Amino acid sequence: MTDNVSALQALPPGSTIGILGGGQLARMLAVAAARLGLYTHIYSDDSGPAFDVAPRASKGDYRDRAALAAFAGAVDVVTFEFENVPVEVAEQLQALVPVRPGAKALAVAQDRLAEKTFLSELALPLAPFAAITRAADIAAAMAEINGPAILKTRRLGYDGKGQAAVSPADDYGRAFSSVGEAPSVLEQRLRFEFEFSVLAVRGCDGEIGFYDSPVNSHAEGILRLSKVPSPLTEAEQMSARAITARIADALDYVGVLAVELFYLGAGAETPLIVNEIAPRVHNSGHWTVDACAISQFENHIRAVAGWPLGSTDRHSDAEMVNLIGADADDWVQLAAEPGVCLHLYGKRHVRPGRKMGHMTRLAPHRR
Amino acid sequence: MTDNVSALQALPPGSTIGILGGGQLARMLAVAAARLGLYTHIYSDDSGPAFDVAPRASKGDYRDRAALAAFAGAVDVVTFEFENVPVEVAEQLQALVPVRPGAKALAVAQDRLAEKTFLSELALPLAPFAAITRAADIAAAMAEINGPAILKTRRLGYDGKGQAAVSPADDYGRAFSSVGEAPSVLEQRLRFEFEFSVLAVRGCDGEIGFYDSPVNSHAEGILRLSKVPSPLTEAEQMSARAITARIADALDYVGVLAVELFYLGAGAETPLIVNEIAPRVHNSGHWTVDACAISQFENHIRAVAGWPLGSTDRHSDAEMVNLIGADADDWVQLAAEPGVCLHLYGKRHVRPGRKMGHMTRLAPHRR
Repeated sequence: MTDNVSALQALPPGSTIGILGGGQLARMLAVAAARLGLYTHIYSDDSGPAFDVAPRASKGDYRDRAALAAFAGAVDVVTFEFENVPVEVAEQLQALVPVRPGAKALAVAQDRLAEKTFLSELALPLAPFAAITRAADIAAAMAEINGPAILKTRRLGYDGKGQAAVSPADDYGRAFSSVGEAPSVLEQRLRFEFEFSVLAVRGCDGEIGFYDSPVNSHAEGILRLSKVPSPLTEAEQMSARAITARIADALDYVGVLAVELFYLGAGAETPLIVNEIAPRVHNSGHWTVDACAISQFENHIRAVAGWPLGSTDRHSDAEMVNLIGADADDWVQLAAEPGVCLHLYGKRHVRPGRKMGHMTRLAPHRR
Repeated sequence: MTDNVSALQALPPGSTIGILGGGQLARMLAVAAARLGLYTHIYSDDSGPAFDVAPRASKGDYRDRAALAAFAGAVDVVTFEFENVPVEVAEQLQALVPVRPGAKALAVAQDRLAEKTFLSELALPLAPFAAITRAADIAAAMAEINGPAILKTRRLGYDGKGQAAVSPADDYGRAFSSVGEAPSVLEQRLRFEFEFSVLAVRGCDGEIGFYDSPVNSHAEGILRLSKVPSPLTEAEQMSARAITARIADALDYVGVLAVELFYLGAGAETPLIVNEIAPRVHNSGHWTVDACAISQFENHIRAVAGWPLGSTDRHSDAEMVNLIGADADDWVQLAAEPGVCLHLYGKRHVRPGRKMGHMTRLAPHRR
């Protein structure tokens, strides 16, 4: 089958899933694992909200090979909540215990240039892009792109950080400074109608399931809202799923994979453009906890534990709104709002831009 | 308002709910609290499945007053997962910290005679009953009841334990021996069409909400299956809710209260008969986790934390089946069944009759 443990060897209840990272995604993964009678062991360089719900948690540096080896010895499989796990860590661990998804998915997803190259080798629809290592590269690339563009650092960009808009008349040196002169990718800035994501889950045996695609909106580079159903037609949704399946198969992927796409409009030559991939459970799938029998978190756990995948059907329409920074101060009003499922992550300190929780508004499924 | 903390003083996220008992009900309460950003602290005389998901857990004897005082000092409110918490424990704790529901609900629910007396003082419909302290009492009571009866110990009966059927021709001495000659209640054995429960939640301000009533079936004294919708008419369900509201108001109750009733048939003189009450989240309400936006566990936590109650609406029809003893060995088949939400409690040892998990089958809501 697709990795070093047969798909028939599902980890029995009582097994332990190791999770790298201790934030809210790890927290929701740990709760989902508990529901199936599976234990979790968190490994993170900082104690976070997952530490409060997991049976075991280790605080350790990601470069501490001895601590990582002990962690690998205490768990039956390793997964992660964020794509910036150092690839060497994944490689060290996967010599000791299955790591799902594997080091290849991490290597591709944590370097924007590797990701664009991988996707273009699969002949998937992308915005034109160029690698940037110095300011002069921007001028050459802008001549090709011939219009507005966006400069993004190759590594460690998230929630809009490490990005700068670039227009033909701009000072390219200043643009490059604004991203710290880090190795970057310049890509054409597209006019799109909306952004959406495909939330797929792929099992150890290659079986793949898809949640209904949410349409997403951002504010200040941070996801603000995800909504199902989206305005996509059935055919458009099928095309997006086919793209996602190609990516998942090429990565021999196990777990939940999120692919963010732009919808350029039914009249566009290429209506769907891949923006980026996230090799993990995804913020735009949080509504699945409240609107589906089996959430993205449980399906990720099922996949990495070698279990049969659960249904991805939803029973309700849903709108997920992130609670960022002081938004969560309104918890008592939000808790009183009919039809709202409130989720707070138990973070001890509020900071501007910090994801403190989310809420899901449910409505009966329009069929 | 109804207890010593104003309803306006909802405990903010980051507060700690103390839970007496460490079984699966406490486990599901702890997960529900985490979802709201509330911490939990389990206190139990034996480590159980709740210990794996709660941020803090203390193993201690229920008679250890010093340990209980330390527990009270570490939490903002205390609740419990089982009605056999010694009343003295609840009284000791409520001198230090709010206990919800309070000692009165415990005192009534843990002594079958006190419960029947309390319910009959409220003029609620009950099967005829009599207190039994010696075998001779049975003869006198049987003469009154004039038909089949059931003998139940006053204390510590659950899942069919401490019960014996008694018929007019029986050897009453032997029947009394079979329940250990413990102080008991003899009650008329009714012919009923089905058993159902009312799952209510009452807030600190007296607000009350009801989940749709499930119809329940038992095997060998243990709940096997709960299903919504039940065959009850709207009017019958309203009568059952009115009974439950009287009980909850009389107990100045805070939290989820389950009332089990018998349905004797539309043609019966008294179609609804109260069987017993459970001052806690209830096995017949487990389907609310999968079929409602806000589960009984979250609503119990909301109530005891002084929060606004959440919606009790359900989005799906549901059938909950308990997985007892070796039933849970079929986890891989159950996990693969479409439309099934599988819940395993993480118990390390399987024993016959032990509740190892449950599953909920969902179907679209028939309106």
